[in-house]
Amino acid sequence: MKIKPLYDRILVQRIEEEQRTESGIIIPDTAKEKPIMGKVIAVGEGRLLENGQKQSLIVKEGDKILFSKYAGTEIKIKGEEYLIMREDDVLAIIEG
Amino acid sequence: MKIKPLYDRILVQRIEEEQRTESGIIIPDTAKEKPIMGKVIAVGEGRLLENGQKQSLIVKEGDKILFSKYAGTEIKIKGEEYLIMREDDVLAIIEG
Amino acid sequence: MKIKPLYDRILVQRIEEEQRTESGIIIPDTAKEKPIMGKVIAVGEGRLLENGQKQSLIVKEGDKILFSKYAGTEIKIKGEEYLIMREDDVLAIIEG
Amino acid sequence: MKIKPLYDRILVQRIEEEQRTESGIIIPDTAKEKPIMGKVIAVGEGRLLENGQKQSLIVKEGDKILFSKYAGTEIKIKGEEYLIMREDDVLAIIEG
Amino acid sequence: MKIKPLYDRILVQRIEEEQRTESGIIIPDTAKEKPIMGKVIAVGEGRLLENGQKQSLIVKEGDKILFSKYAGTEIKIKGEEYLIMREDDVLAIIEG
Amino acid sequence: MKIKPLYDRILVQRIEEEQRTESGIIIPDTAKEKPIMGKVIAVGEGRLLENGQKQSLIVKEGDKILFSKYAGTEIKIKGEEYLIMREDDVLAIIEG
Amino acid sequence: MKIKPLYDRILVQRIEEEQRTESGIIIPDTAKEKPIMGKVIAVGEGRLLENGQKQSLIVKEGDKILFSKYAGTEIKIKGEEYLIMREDDVLAIIEG
Repeated sequence: MKIKPLYDRILVQRIEEEQRTESGIIIPDTAKEKPIMGKVIAVGEGRLLENGQKQSLIVKEGDKILFSKYAGTEIKIKGEEYLIMREDDVLAIIEG
Repeated sequence: MKIKPLYDRILVQRIEEEQRTESGIIIPDTAKEKPIMGKVIAVGEGRLLENGQKQSLIVKEGDKILFSKYAGTEIKIKGEEYLIMREDDVLAIIEG
Repeated sequence: MKIKPLYDRILVQRIEEEQRTESGIIIPDTAKEKPIMGKVIAVGEGRLLENGQKQSLIVKEGDKILFSKYAGTEIKIKGEEYLIMREDDVLAIIEG
Repeated sequence: MKIKPLYDRILVQRIEEEQRTESGIIIPDTAKEKPIMGKVIAVGEGRLLENGQKQSLIVKEGDKILFSKYAGTEIKIKGEEYLIMREDDVLAIIEG
Repeated sequence: MKIKPLYDRILVQRIEEEQRTESGIIIPDTAKEKPIMGKVIAVGEGRLLENGQKQSLIVKEGDKILFSKYAGTEIKIKGEEYLIMREDDVLAIIEG
Repeated sequence: MKIKPLYDRILVQRIEEEQRTESGIIIPDTAKEKPIMGKVIAVGEGRLLENGQKQSLIVKEGDKILFSKYAGTEIKIKGEEYLIMREDDVLAIIEG
Repeated sequence: MKIKPLYDRILVQRIEEEQRTESGIIIPDTAKEKPIMGKVIAVGEGRLLENGQKQSLIVKEGDKILFSKYAGTEIKIKGEEYLIMREDDVLAIIEG
């Protein structure tokens, strides 16, 4: 079974706090809108442009990303928790 | 009798919870906005673009989809319950 | 006397509940936003696109349609009740 | 003296209820948003499109129209009451 | 000293009620949104279109206009009161 | 040190009331939304159009302008107060 | 490890008040919406235009910028605080 997000949506798995701490990224509790780290599991075909073309997303499978705390819709697949969100909810990609 | 959704609208039949559990997808009760599984029964001719063309939808008859709990309008046809929603309310297609 | 709706507007006559039941379509009382069945009596010249062209509507005179309960403006002509709504308020066409 | 509405605006004179009744159009008191009948006295040069061109209006001087109760701005010229509204507030033209 | 409104803005001087009465235009006290008469003193270079071009305004210096009561920003220059508003706030030009 | 506003933003220095009175422009206390006079200190490269081009601003360094009381963000540089606002918040240029 | 902001987003490090005072820019406490100084650490590939192209940002790595107090999302990387914001939240670049 495979989840295929639509258009500019992506399927994301949260990265737990311990893992984030190791990676050196800490989100302060006082942050107005805490970003969260995740791993991209699947991406849509691309954003639908006004001329009808689909624009490929920048984020791709396997990317580690930062996204807003309120982004996306939660879903559980075979016991694992995931989020489906729009690429526009992604703040940044974490490289290296 | 046949229901033909307009433009980017689609006709969807909910997939019951037991069936969803079998498929391995569980939507947590604590989810902010619970997605729901369904099967696409009919799709519109396509989204109307600003240049007047109709852009075919990605979802097609027979697709199993995830959509937001608040998506669509309920309708009952010959005792069966359906939903009419816009393709943009569809989060993902479930393949395999 | 003839009513000619403007642009993407259409003139619709409601189909009474008895008739709807015969057709096999029942709208549940618990529905969040009950759709309603109607017959298209007249349609506008077409939706005005940004380039100034008029895009013909999909619905046409005689079509049986489903539309949202809150769609349109009521009007009575020679004792008969009608609704004037935009084509975008139409959810689906009922064929056959 | 002449009133020349701008762009997609039109000058309208209400048609009184007695006249409307004769014409066979009655707006029910229970209507959510009662449309009103009027006669078009003057029309603007046309709707300004994004490319800078002016798109001629469909309604023209002399047309009998139906418009929403809340449409337009009231004005009195030499003792006569008028309304200035946008063409988009016009629901339909009454022909014949 | 000269006031040069920007883009689609215009500089307007109100026409007093006595003058308006002479011209035959009376705005009823019961009007939902009373229009007001004024004289155009200066106009901007034109509305900025999305392609970067400036579209000349229809109203021009010297025009007598009707505009919505809530339109514009008040300003006093050498003891005289003026209004700066957008051309879109102008309902109609009064000719003759 | 130089402040370079971005895109369609401009850097403005308020002109004090005494100076304004001399210039003959008085903003009434009863004004709904009092405009304020200022001098343009720096302008951005231009408004970003949808096609990606930058459209030069009309206002330029040295211009005396009128702007809405609520326009812009305050900033103090070396003891002097300034405002950074969008060109669209400028109502008019005062010439001569 | 490197943070790569998406599209028109940028990664910014606040410049502390002492440093700002040295630079001669002081934000008054009475300011309606206090701008804040920062240094650009990384920029996205560019703003996504409607035609699907990416428009390079004006701000670049190393720029000192002024931005609105409410701009962006806070994040802490290896003990250092950063902000991720859109380029449109940047008011001006401080040169020299």
